[in-house]
Formats: sequence, C-alpha cells, structure tokens
Amino acid sequence: MSTTWLLIAIFTGALSLGVAVYLFFWVKRQDAGTERAREVARWIREGASAYLKKLYIALALVALVIAIIIGLVFSFDLANFGNGHAVINPALGMEMALAFISGAICSALAGYMGMSVAVEANVRSATAANHSINRAFRVAFYAGAVMGLAMVGVAIIGMSIIYLWTHNPEVVLGFSFGASTLALLAKAGGGIYTKTADIAADLVGKVEVGIPEDDPRNPAVVADNVGDNVGDVAGMGADIFDSYVASSVAVMLLGVSFSTAAQDKYIVFPLILCALGIAASLLGIEFVRVGKDGEPGAALNRGTIITCILFAGFVVGLVLLGGYDISILWSTLVGLITGIVVGFTSDYFTSDDKKPVRETAKVSGSGAAMTIITGFSYGLISIVPPVIAIVVAILISYNLAEASGVISGVYGIGISAVGMLAVSGMIVSADAYGPIVDNARGIAAMAGMSHEVIERADVLDSAGNTAKAITKGFAISAAAITVLALFAAYAEVLEAHGLTLDISLRNPLVIAGVLLGAMTPPLFSALTMLSVTHNAFDMIEEIRRQFKERPGILAGTELPDYNTCVGLAAQGALSSLVLPALLAVVLPLVVGFILGPNALGGFLGGSIFTGVIFALLMSNAGGLWDNAKKLIESGEFGGPGSEAHKAGVVGDTVGDPFKDTAGPSLNTLITVMSLVSSLFAPLIAAFHLFK
Amino acid sequence: MSTTWLLIAIFTGALSLGVAVYLFFWVKRQDAGTERAREVARWIREGASAYLKKLYIALALVALVIAIIIGLVFSFDLANFGNGHAVINPALGMEMALAFISGAICSALAGYMGMSVAVEANVRSATAANHSINRAFRVAFYAGAVMGLAMVGVAIIGMSIIYLWTHNPEVVLGFSFGASTLALLAKAGGGIYTKTADIAADLVGKVEVGIPEDDPRNPAVVADNVGDNVGDVAGMGADIFDSYVASSVAVMLLGVSFSTAAQDKYIVFPLILCALGIAASLLGIEFVRVGKDGEPGAALNRGTIITCILFAGFVVGLVLLGGYDISILWSTLVGLITGIVVGFTSDYFTSDDKKPVRETAKVSGSGAAMTIITGFSYGLISIVPPVIAIVVAILISYNLAEASGVISGVYGIGISAVGMLAVSGMIVSADAYGPIVDNARGIAAMAGMSHEVIERADVLDSAGNTAKAITKGFAISAAAITVLALFAAYAEVLEAHGLTLDISLRNPLVIAGVLLGAMTPPLFSALTMLSVTHNAFDMIEEIRRQFKERPGILAGTELPDYNTCVGLAAQGALSSLVLPALLAVVLPLVVGFILGPNALGGFLGGSIFTGVIFALLMSNAGGLWDNAKKLIESGEFGGPGSEAHKAGVVGDTVGDPFKDTAGPSLNTLITVMSLVSSLFAPLIAAFHLFK
Repeated sequence: MSTTWLLIAIFTGALSLGVAVYLFFWVKRQDAGTERAREVARWIREGASAYLKKLYIALALVALVIAIIIGLVFSFDLANFGNGHAVINPALGMEMALAFISGAICSALAGYMGMSVAVEANVRSATAANHSINRAFRVAFYAGAVMGLAMVGVAIIGMSIIYLWTHNPEVVLGFSFGASTLALLAKAGGGIYTKTADIAADLVGKVEVGIPEDDPRNPAVVADNVGDNVGDVAGMGADIFDSYVASSVAVMLLGVSFSTAAQDKYIVFPLILCALGIAASLLGIEFVRVGKDGEPGAALNRGTIITCILFAGFVVGLVLLGGYDISILWSTLVGLITGIVVGFTSDYFTSDDKKPVRETAKVSGSGAAMTIITGFSYGLISIVPPVIAIVVAILISYNLAEASGVISGVYGIGISAVGMLAVSGMIVSADAYGPIVDNARGIAAMAGMSHEVIERADVLDSAGNTAKAITKGFAISAAAITVLALFAAYAEVLEAHGLTLDISLRNPLVIAGVLLGAMTPPLFSALTMLSVTHNAFDMIEEIRRQFKERPGILAGTELPDYNTCVGLAAQGALSSLVLPALLAVVLPLVVGFILGPNALGGFLGGSIFTGVIFALLMSNAGGLWDNAKKLIESGEFGGPGSEAHKAGVVGDTVGDPFKDTAGPSLNTLITVMSLVSSLFAPLIAAFHLFK
Repeated sequence: MSTTWLLIAIFTGALSLGVAVYLFFWVKRQDAGTERAREVARWIREGASAYLKKLYIALALVALVIAIIIGLVFSFDLANFGNGHAVINPALGMEMALAFISGAICSALAGYMGMSVAVEANVRSATAANHSINRAFRVAFYAGAVMGLAMVGVAIIGMSIIYLWTHNPEVVLGFSFGASTLALLAKAGGGIYTKTADIAADLVGKVEVGIPEDDPRNPAVVADNVGDNVGDVAGMGADIFDSYVASSVAVMLLGVSFSTAAQDKYIVFPLILCALGIAASLLGIEFVRVGKDGEPGAALNRGTIITCILFAGFVVGLVLLGGYDISILWSTLVGLITGIVVGFTSDYFTSDDKKPVRETAKVSGSGAAMTIITGFSYGLISIVPPVIAIVVAILISYNLAEASGVISGVYGIGISAVGMLAVSGMIVSADAYGPIVDNARGIAAMAGMSHEVIERADVLDSAGNTAKAITKGFAISAAAITVLALFAAYAEVLEAHGLTLDISLRNPLVIAGVLLGAMTPPLFSALTMLSVTHNAFDMIEEIRRQFKERPGILAGTELPDYNTCVGLAAQGALSSLVLPALLAVVLPLVVGFILGPNALGGFLGGSIFTGVIFALLMSNAGGLWDNAKKLIESGEFGGPGSEAHKAGVVGDTVGDPFKDTAGPSLNTLITVMSLVSSLFAPLIAAFHLFK
C-alpha cells in the first residue's frame, strides 16, 4: 500500500519537474531584448554564477566533512548502545552519509535551478514590459514557477526514494539535515551578500552622490542586482525547501511509534499530502493571469487562494476515501488557515494603507530616531497575532488528534505544519516572482529603457513585495510548527534509545538549556548583521575610491569596475558564514554532551521561542520600514527629498538586514539545530547512559 | 529564635532609616546657591512634585481596587477549596489586603523620599561644584545614599513586621505584590515621562534650532530635568525595591516546605541576609570619598567592592556561627559574583574605550542606519555573557543546595538572588547619584554657572553613567533569578493546594503558555515605547508652537512656558500607563483561568526568558548608543557637527526609550506577573479542580 503511494508521490514530483523544465524553455524562448539589455543581464548572470560556484565549492567541502562524520557515527549501531554493547553496522552509516549528501545536493539543485531561470527571466521580463504589464508579468511569474515547481519536485522525489530504499525515517532525517545545512548557509550567505551590496550602493549612490537607484554609474549596481538573485531567489528557495522537507520528516518520525498497522498508513502520509499540494499548485498556477489592465497583486493572491481551496478539497477526498482519521483533515486545514492568517498579519503590518506604516511615515518628519522607534515598536506588536494563531493551531491539532485514539497529538501538530507547507509549489512561485521583477526594473533602468517601461516594472515590483511579505509569514509560522514537531520527534528518538526525557521547567538543567537556547537566535542575528555592516563598510570605501580616482564614472563617460564590488560581496559573504554555521551545528552538540539530553530539550525549546519572535519582529519591521519609505517617496508626509524622506531611508536601510539577512535565516537556524539534535540524539543518549 | 532575628532585622532597618534621615538633613543644610539657581531648582522640584502627586492619587485608586479584590478573594479559605468545601476566613482577607496596601505605600514612600532629596541635592551639588568636584560629589552621593538606605530600611521593616504579625509568608507575598504593582507603574510612568521630555527637548532644541543641552530657552528643559527625577530616581528606586522584596518573599515561601525544625531557621533567613547587607552598605558608604583630584567613578566602585567584601565576610560568620548549611554561603557568593559579572559586562558593552562603542561610533560616518544596525547587533551579543552567568549561578546554587540534604535546590537559587540584592543599599546609593549629578549639570547650565562648573559636572555625570549601567545589569540578573525562584514558589503554592503541576515542554498547553508568555515582554516594550514617541510628538508640536508664536524665547528676552510641557509629559505618561498595567495584571489571570495552571506555568517561564533577553538588549544597546554619541562629541571619528555626530544623535535618541523606558520596566513586569500568579494560584487551582 505505502509503496503505491510512494510511487504516486515520485510520479507527481516528476510531473512537477517536467512542467518546470517546460516553463524554463518557454522563458528562454522569449525575446531577450536589446544589445545593451543583454549585456547588463550578462553581468548579473555572470556575477551570480561566480558567487554560486564559489559557495557550492565551499559547501561541497563542508558537506563532505559532515557526511564522513555522520557515516562513521552511524556505522555503530547506536540503538544497542543503551544495552551496553555496540554493534558495527556500516550499512546504516553509508545510508546516512548518502542521504545527507543527497539532501545537500537536492537543496543546492533547487536553489541553482531557481537562480538560473531568474537570471534569464529578468531581462526578458524587462523587454516584455515594452509591450505590456500583462506580458512582463507572465514571463516573471512563469520563471518563478520554475523555481517553485522544481523545488517541490526535487524534494518529494528525494524523500520518497530514500524511504522506498531504506524504509527508515531516520535516514530521511539525514536527508533533511543535509538540505537544511545547505539551506542555512545559502540563506545566510545570500542574505549577507544581497544586503552588503544593497546598503553600500544606496549609501554612496543615493545618499552621498545623489544618483538614482539602479544607475549604471554606480560601481555596486551589478552586485546589488546579483544579490537579489543569490539572496532572494536561491536563498529563499533553499529556505522553504528545508522547512518543506523537515516538516514531512518530523511527521514520518512521529508515525514510527504507532501500531504496526497504522505505521504503514501514517508514516508516508505527509508525502501524500505533499503530492496533493503539488497537484493543487500545478492547477493553481494556471489561474495566475493578468488581464489587459489587471492587477498583478490580485492575480498572485488569486492563484494562492485557488491552490489552497483545491488542496483542501483533495485532502477531504483523500481522508474520506482513504480511510484516514478525520482529525488529520482538521489538522491540515488548521495549518493552512494559520499560514494564511500569519500571511495577512504580515500584510497588515507592512501595507502602506494601514496604520503601522502610515504612523511610521508620519513621525519620520521628526527625524530618523522616531522612524526607528515607531517601526521597531510595531514590529514587536506584529509578533502577537501570529503567536496567537500558532498557539491556537497547536492546541486544536493536538487535541483533535489526541482524541482520535488513532494518531498521537504531536503527529497532529506535525500534520498542520505539513498542511501549511504542502502548497509551497504555489507560494514559492509567487515569492520568486518578486526578485525577478525587481531585477527586471534594475535592468530596465541600467539599459536605459523608457520611463513607461520603468513605471510598469514598478507596478510589477510592488505586487512582488506583498507576495514576499506573505511568504515570509508563511515560512516563519510553518518553521515554528515544524520545529515543534521535530522537538517531539527528538523526544521520541531519545526514548526509543532507552532514555526518559524530563523537560519540565522545574528542572534547573532544562531552565539552563532554555536560557542558552533563547540567546542563540539573537546571537546568530547579531553575527550576520555585523557581517553586513562590516562588508558594506569595505564596499563603501571601494565605491568612494572609484568615484574619486576615476571622475569619468560619475560623468558617464567611462564604465565603473563592477567586478571588484561583485568580488567583495562574494568574498565577504563566504568568510562571514563560518561563525554562524558553527554556532548552528556545534552549539546543540555542546549542550547535549555537556549538560545532557534534558538540557538539550530545553535548549531547542528556548531557541524556538526566541527564534520565532525575532524572525517575526525582524521580517515585519523590515517590511514596514521599506514601505514607509516608499509611502513618503510617493509624495505623502513631505515627499521625496524632505527630512521625512531622509529618515525613511535610514529606516529602510536598518530594515534591510533585519528582513533579508537575519530574520529569514532564523527559521533555518532553528530547523538545523533541531535536526542536528534529533540526528545525534542516539549518540547523546548513549554517551549519558554510559557516563 | 526567629523572633530575635526579626527584631534584629527591624532594628537594622531602623538604623538604616535613621542614617538616611540624618543624611537628608545634612544635604538640606548645604548651600543652595544663587537666587537664579534656586529658582531653576524650584521649577524642577515643583514639576516633580506635581507629577508624583498625580501619579500617587491615580495609584492610590488602583491599589484600593486591587486591595478590595484581594481582601474578598482571600476571605474564602482557599486552602480548603481542593477538599470541596469553602470556609469563610475574613481575617486572612483583611491581612492580605492590608499587606498589599502596605507594600504599595512602602514602595511609594521609598520612591518619594529618594525624589525629595534628589530635588534638593541637585542645586546644592551644582553650587558645591563651584568649589570642587570633591564637595559636589559628596552632596550628590550622600543624597543618593538617602534613597538607597531609606529603600532597604523601609523594605526590611515592612517585611519583618508583617511576618512577625502573621507568621504566614503568603501574606508577605501580598506585601510584595503591592510593592511591585506600584513599582511597575512608577517605573513605566517615570520612564515614559522622562524620555518624552528628553527626546522632544533634544529633537527641537539641539537638532532643529541648534541650542545646547539644558539651554533655558528650551520650553521642554524643565520637563526634561523633572524627568530625571521621576524616572531615574523615583522609578529606579521603586524597581530595585520590588526585586529586593520579591526575592526575599520567594525564599520565605520556599522555606515553608521544609521540616518544622528547619522552617524556623530558614524562612526568616533572607531577612537576616538583608540585614547583613544593610550593615555592609552602611559601612561601605563610608569608603566612598573622592580626594582632591580623585576619580568619582573609582570612588563609587570602591564603595561597591568594599560593601560586597564586608557582606561576604558577614555571611561567612553567620553561616559558621549560626549553624546554617554551608551551601547557603556558596549560593550567596555565587549570586553576588553573578551580579558583579553582569555589571561588568554592561560596562564592557557601554564603555567608550571598548570595541562595541568604538565600532559603533566608527561606522556612524556612513550614516545613522549603520549606527543603529551595529549598536543593535552588539546589544544582541551583550545578552550572551549575562545569560551564561545566570545559567552557571542557577546550576551551582541548585546543585549545592540539593546536595546539602537540608534545604531544597530552588531555595538555593532563591538565596543567590537575595545574596545579589542584599547589598542594594550601596548599589542604589551609587545609582541614584547619577540622575542627581545629571540634574546638577542641568541646573548649572540653566542658571548660567561658569564653564568650569559645567565641566566638573560633566566629570561627575560620566561616573554616574557607568554606575547606572552596572546597576541595570545587577537589577536585571537579580530579577531574572528572583523570578525563577518565584516560579518555583508558584509551583509549591499550587501543590500545597492539591494540584500537581505538569510544566513539561512536551505538554502542548505548556508550549502554548510559553509562547504567549514570551510575546508579553516585547508587547509591553512596544506599548511603552509607542507612548514615548506619541507623547514626544505632541510635545514637539508644543515646543515648535512656542518658538514660532513667541520669537522672544529664542532671542533670550522672554522665558518660555515650561509648565505646559511639564503638564503634557505628566498627562501623557499617566494615560499611557493603563494598557501596559492591565497587561501585567490581567494577562496571567486570563491564561491561568482559561488555559489552566500548567499553561500559566509555561506563561511565566516564557515571560522570564524573553523578559531577560529584551531587558539586557535594550539596556545595553541604549547605553552603547549614548556613549558612542559622547565619544564622537569628544572629537573622535569626525567630532561635533560631523555626519557621524548626527548619526550618533539618532542612535542616542533611539536608545533613550530602549534603556530608560522599556528595558528597565521589564524586570518589574515579569516580577509582577509572577507575583500575581503565585498570589492567585490557590484560586486558579480551586477553579480548575472544581471545573
């Protein structure tokens, strides 16, 4: 029975990949525009490829080292450590190492495909904007869909094949760990890259010498546009990829404790949900169309809503016909609804027609300090609705599942995370659309296209921002619930290895663990943000140097040296990754081995609590400042050039690393820490039982 | 035996109060200076008195309502609810209500006394600065000591008398709740007041019209100086008062579960520690003297260190001679050392000769956004050392106490909090000194004293800033450990009423509680900070109006209308208090009654975790920005008037509500929430047992 389902899942994944490949060639067939536009696009493409190449070489080395460690560790049969004798089991070690490597490769592949199509689509979308919004939108969205569909396709195929091969969810955990480790590095590295270039380009270009955004005279302009691709496309793709896989794996692990009859049915269930989500996404994408004078934002939202409705319908059918417990349906729906609620909250706190953004723009007239305090405060308030939504989702899905008598409460929580993420195919498509049109706007400006084209690109861009805010809310709440499910899985893995977990808050070791875990996301955020300011500081010096030594650049008579800035951004991002990466992988192990499994349980809990809070704060405050600045630029509260505008720019710049570097990496950080803990739980248990 | 100790404690408190009264009159006897200086001081005094009067009238009403509710609730013998029958016990209700009212009055009294001497000492310290730093320092420090000694004196007398009267630690809990409720309102209200005036005065005065700090032409200058007194003196005094009482009460409650023989000895033990701390402080204050060309900062530190050493010596004697378990000694010392470590961390992150401040000042040349991102990031990193210190303190004190076989592990944790706070007499003296010399500087400037006097006042002021940073670290870590002890007390109270608490992180209700608790400190911070920007916005309009309508003000030919600004600040602060106060008192009850005692346990845990993190972040980042600005003003990285300086001012202004409004209120917030939970635990238990 489960084999049939796995084959169906693999087939759905292959279908999704097939459509992605078809759309990729469709995009490539579109007109790539004028000589000048092609040249600009080539700079961006080459910069992005060069960075990804360096990144992937570095990551390949890291992955190899970790794979070898995993292979060695799991060659001992840890399940028997508790019984006092260690058995050599090289087969498991090999499986684990291979699963880890596959996870890393799949994650890299998804990011790479997304990036490849994005750097082709940007110039084609800009060129299509010469004709109409409608046509430009289609190019950008279909390119985004390549990313979305490739990602879910690769993920479901990878998980299904590994499970089909080993029938051991712990090996799929290895796959997930590989995917997440790579995602963390891709996301944090891309986030540092993109904001280094963005801030440096803005601070010297816009503020110091007063040239507009995307002006070809700015030596950092290519690096800035490369950053959109490596940070927002490749990074975000890897991020959702990792939650998508982790939520399914958590549920699979939780299914292991069920009765043998239920196991067959419920271990593969998350993969079935993913398959249904892919089917719904493939259909939903068809509905994303902009009419002659249609609204791109409305089109994207329509696609998302139709996908969700189709998916809900499919799940109803599956549960009724497949004989699954009805509580599964509620958990899925609760997850889906939570994702939507959190998305809309992000939208409220970052929309320029709502109070938070308007209030922040209004006080900006009294200086940048007011902009920062007000935006930050609303960012803090924006934590409240998602947290309440997550709490409600947890309580409902847990209690209904627990009452079913068939599945466990935590399994229900896990299913609500899978339910939320199953429609990722559509969500990522809408999200990846954003940086593509952002890039299209950049190319249009740099290639000197008409004012009308740039205006159209602006319309497309603003729809992308809203989609981005919704996706971030989705990603954060999904990661939060996923990690809670992983947390439960961690406990079950430990108990399966003969250790009883006491993670009561009355245990001082647990309190100690929670406090240490709670400080980790803030520390991680600080390290990545300091990397941004540090690297941006270097790049600012470089831009100033070019302007000073070669006056022809600003006069427009000679081209700036784009490559030095591209190189600085890439080098800076890569070398900044070492410390945060070590933190994520090593810290949980240190806590686990020194303070023990109970403290590690507390540590994971603590990291989830502050991880969610800081992720929401940073993403929403960043989006809010961005749009407050845009609101002022649109002419309100003083308009462009006013004191309010200057204050708005400060807010926007502060928000940049908040929303695009630190904030979105936190989901992945807590996922990686949970995965590394679950994966090494048997070893930690063995260590403490022997001690 | 315990009665003797209680009488000794009361005697020590009376001695402390006596010395405070003596110093008060000593300060009053000093020269109050020129006519002009007296006039300026009178404005400040009247403004402060008017605000405190309004505040205390409002608080008296609030306290009365709460007292009546407490009186009614505790008139039912809740201890018997679990057995199914409710017994009327009006005596307990009366005791509780009176204890609550006494706590509120004592807290108000301590704040009021501190404020009264501060508004007399400011002008006298400024006048003394005409002679020497030495003399000015003595006036300000002795005035600070009035606050410190009065506070500990009132606290120990209040607690001892109530326990002597009722022999029931739960009634002392009522006293503590009264003290903390008032402290929360005084602290948050004072924090909003002081930063509203400070920001408005700076933004219009310094930035818009370019007049210096404390210029008498600024309509908000009096409100700004009033703010120092009501926020930093009265507010901070109430804040430490509340932790001081809460830590002792938590330990007393935890002693109840001991064997009857040990009870007598260990319930009153925290009061003995407090008495020893007072004795050490009284002696330590003698060592705070500045020579002819001495350093005020060194003098303050010397006093603190000598007090700590004396206190440690006293505790060694007590434990050896009094037959107490030796683990008590270690817990006390661990607490003391933790306080010092946390204090020095704050000092590192906020000192202008260390990397964080220098780096922030350096990047300021590239704009305010870099200042904010860098300072915020270092603020996040500054969380790490205190959290590790707290974790070490918890683990050591718990395990040693647990191993003793005499006292419980959580009792040991509580003792480490009391050990840290026992020297509050000295700590608060050094802390209250800060705003007094800050005010002295203001009066010197407004009264047109010589440049030399103002320079001396600056030297005194900068020593005050360091003392303030250390105190904040002390207060936050003490509150964190106190609340952890209260948390244990909450669990014991519940179990004494027949309910078993399951606060494992595997319980979804606990996770739900933790998430809700974790979002509360950020929400509270946001509400208070938005009040500041909102009120400052109103005051900015008023200052601009005065400058515009009456050009004579800026010309120096007519006095501005100080009263309107003073009134705006007071009114704004009071009306902004309603929502945060409700949050603190009502939210724990809502969680407790709706989601149950386990969720409430999680809620308290969550509020502690993020409360500590946000308190540390905000206090340290705020102090860092303040000193980065001062570093630039001293001539480095561009010096006054440079772009870096403008950026530094933005950082400082953002830091103002961080460090003086939101940050320091969080300790009190988590204390109030823990106290309200412990106090109403019997009712919540009864409600859920009956349901």
